[in-house]
Amino acid sequence: MNSAFSTLARRTREPPISWLMKLTLERPGLISLAAGFTDNESLPVTATRELADNLLASARTGRPALQYGSTAGDLELRRLTANRLAELDQRSYDPDQILITHGSQQLLYLVCECLCDPHDLVLVEDPTYFVFLGIAQSLGFDCRGIRMKPDGLDLEHLEQRLAALKKSGEIKRFKFLYLVTYFQNPSGITTSFAKKRAALDLLKKYERAAGHPIFLLEDAAYRELRFLGDDVPSAPGSDRVIYAGTYSKPFATGIRVGFGVLPEPLRTLVWRLKGSHDFGTANFTQQIVSAAIASCRFKEHLASLRKRYAQKAEVMAHAIAEHFPDSVEWQKPRGGLYIWAKASKVSTGAKSKFFNAALHKKVIYVPGELCYCDDPSRRKPNHEMRLSFGGATEHDIREGIRRLGALLKRA
Amino acid sequence: MNSAFSTLARRTREPPISWLMKLTLERPGLISLAAGFTDNESLPVTATRELADNLLASARTGRPALQYGSTAGDLELRRLTANRLAELDQRSYDPDQILITHGSQQLLYLVCECLCDPHDLVLVEDPTYFVFLGIAQSLGFDCRGIRMKPDGLDLEHLEQRLAALKKSGEIKRFKFLYLVTYFQNPSGITTSFAKKRAALDLLKKYERAAGHPIFLLEDAAYRELRFLGDDVPSAPGSDRVIYAGTYSKPFATGIRVGFGVLPEPLRTLVWRLKGSHDFGTANFTQQIVSAAIASCRFKEHLASLRKRYAQKAEVMAHAIAEHFPDSVEWQKPRGGLYIWAKASKVSTGAKSKFFNAALHKKVIYVPGELCYCDDPSRRKPNHEMRLSFGGATEHDIREGIRRLGALLKRA
Repeated sequence: MNSAFSTLARRTREPPISWLMKLTLERPGLISLAAGFTDNESLPVTATRELADNLLASARTGRPALQYGSTAGDLELRRLTANRLAELDQRSYDPDQILITHGSQQLLYLVCECLCDPHDLVLVEDPTYFVFLGIAQSLGFDCRGIRMKPDGLDLEHLEQRLAALKKSGEIKRFKFLYLVTYFQNPSGITTSFAKKRAALDLLKKYERAAGHPIFLLEDAAYRELRFLGDDVPSAPGSDRVIYAGTYSKPFATGIRVGFGVLPEPLRTLVWRLKGSHDFGTANFTQQIVSAAIASCRFKEHLASLRKRYAQKAEVMAHAIAEHFPDSVEWQKPRGGLYIWAKASKVSTGAKSKFFNAALHKKVIYVPGELCYCDDPSRRKPNHEMRLSFGGATEHDIREGIRRLGALLKRA
Repeated sequence: MNSAFSTLARRTREPPISWLMKLTLERPGLISLAAGFTDNESLPVTATRELADNLLASARTGRPALQYGSTAGDLELRRLTANRLAELDQRSYDPDQILITHGSQQLLYLVCECLCDPHDLVLVEDPTYFVFLGIAQSLGFDCRGIRMKPDGLDLEHLEQRLAALKKSGEIKRFKFLYLVTYFQNPSGITTSFAKKRAALDLLKKYERAAGHPIFLLEDAAYRELRFLGDDVPSAPGSDRVIYAGTYSKPFATGIRVGFGVLPEPLRTLVWRLKGSHDFGTANFTQQIVSAAIASCRFKEHLASLRKRYAQKAEVMAHAIAEHFPDSVEWQKPRGGLYIWAKASKVSTGAKSKFFNAALHKKVIYVPGELCYCDDPSRRKPNHEMRLSFGGATEHDIREGIRRLGALLKRA
């Protein structure tokens, strides 16, 4: 009596984050360095109150905010988004290329649905965003990992992979390369512009063998959460690049507004599918984001958020330097929410002694192994931790790192 | 160079509503009796302003509203929803059965994804909600129509269908029956409780032949928009019933909050998939709805909304009685947003002379043919119009119906 459910439903697993969340909820007092939550104290409560109040102060602006909108999303928000991207990238964007989604994750899901059939092939970074791996697994894609260097993708490895896929004929099933290009989740690495361009060129070179276009899906979720160094332009304008951005993390995660910039005909395909999913993101939240951007509220909030995360990153980095053994490899973050720590001699997996000892000491992290796709060509690395300084308080960051450090020294 | 896109993407068509919306936007002054928009003047601008203001008045309530929530949805909203349903149906509901979604359409999409593989079979009402047909078509399902009687489904026709499916062996691909049970979109018909129970019993009878559970998906989107007569309980509590409800239409369509009540193990499967789609509906909109229900705002708004729609339905019914020829069949609505008018001698399809003449006179409706699935066992009826009194002003309703009436008399 099982076949009442679809192949997709039977394939879809419980996401690892919900298992980690459950652990947190079940153990009051647990310090979670696992959750990708944003900093609770810096949520823009007052700003959002003012924005909502203004928006709803008159029928003229209030009614459109509370009525159905269009599937593509609020035109004003798409215009503002195009302008912001144009400013960042120093090239022009057309609001008609942009789709507003219910968080950027919905965009990732829609793009995956539109590009791949089950058993198609996707290349990802090794490691990569584990929620993306969940989507890919649910939709039945095969993922293969491309190694990382300090400035992003290992291009030689990408080329080797592509050549091997061509040789085996699997290139015909290969649809896109997924990159988290800014302060990558989990590694913290930012991909240089040159690497993005070179990766695109490489993909292009293999299109003939593939027999179809090959896309680059650039996930820029953490782009705005930069607190050190300069911004990097997004992948060069191309009919092969999909750009996924979000207003949830840089403004408020309880307001799920993300967006995508998509080339035709993919934009139309994704737009149609969005029509099936929900025929458009909630107008109210979109217009609050529009108002935040159009006023100086968004900019102000982002500036204070960057300061706050810089401070929390500093606290975590300081604690790690103090408490972790020297053998642990890690980088001081320049943006994003995470530090990626590699303890070569310790297994950190969900079933490891170390993870359980940490749980016993009431601190959790995201086991690094969750961030690696099932790639038959290598063993899954099992020595890393994703440590988030986003949600925890400064006190908990210090204390959590101290406890992990003590355990690492013992292990 | 086409196979860069998935089978799903290539199968997904532009939804008919977006084509009708485009017509409306391109022709200023056009009277749209097509759009399923809700009444603009009754949108709860002031109430929402107060609710948002209260919610964001302190960090204690404001921060949780602006932070990530859980994939299943805000527990308080699930509790309030369970209580409201318990009151309506006079039986108990467990908040853990409930999932909050980004509008009830997202629930329909998730349930479809979880129950059917491409080429599986779904039974729908004849006519049915055309957006659902779009989802089914996009996901590659085969739909077959079950005729309607004034109190809902024609049970004899359902039984004939099931017997025929059993005989042909197609029953093995049959997964669920989709019913829009309150003030049906488009026909306005409400399904009696007895019919829902009888339909469930019939489905149960064929499970052995199917080799798997067969579900009833009850779409109750218009349940709250009742302005005449008594409420009808939802389908009896069963591990085969999925109930889809919404707060968008009875409160504000710009706040996309819907919900589902699902039996296990389906609830878990849909919850996992929701995790892939967006890991949870925007907390902010959910908590505004919670606050609306917990205060008297929701109840107050709904009461005034019902009065308003009763009035607009009356205006449309009055205009139809005055202007349409007697040969046109229609019913005075008791709830919902639509009147379904059948002009036996006139073709009303999107490519008909009549539709084009109406467009020329600057009035549009939803052609009835769009509400019928592709069912090889009958010709698609082509003589009906779905006339919405939801979005248009009273003046436009009168004027639109007058113009259509003049054209009907001429045709």
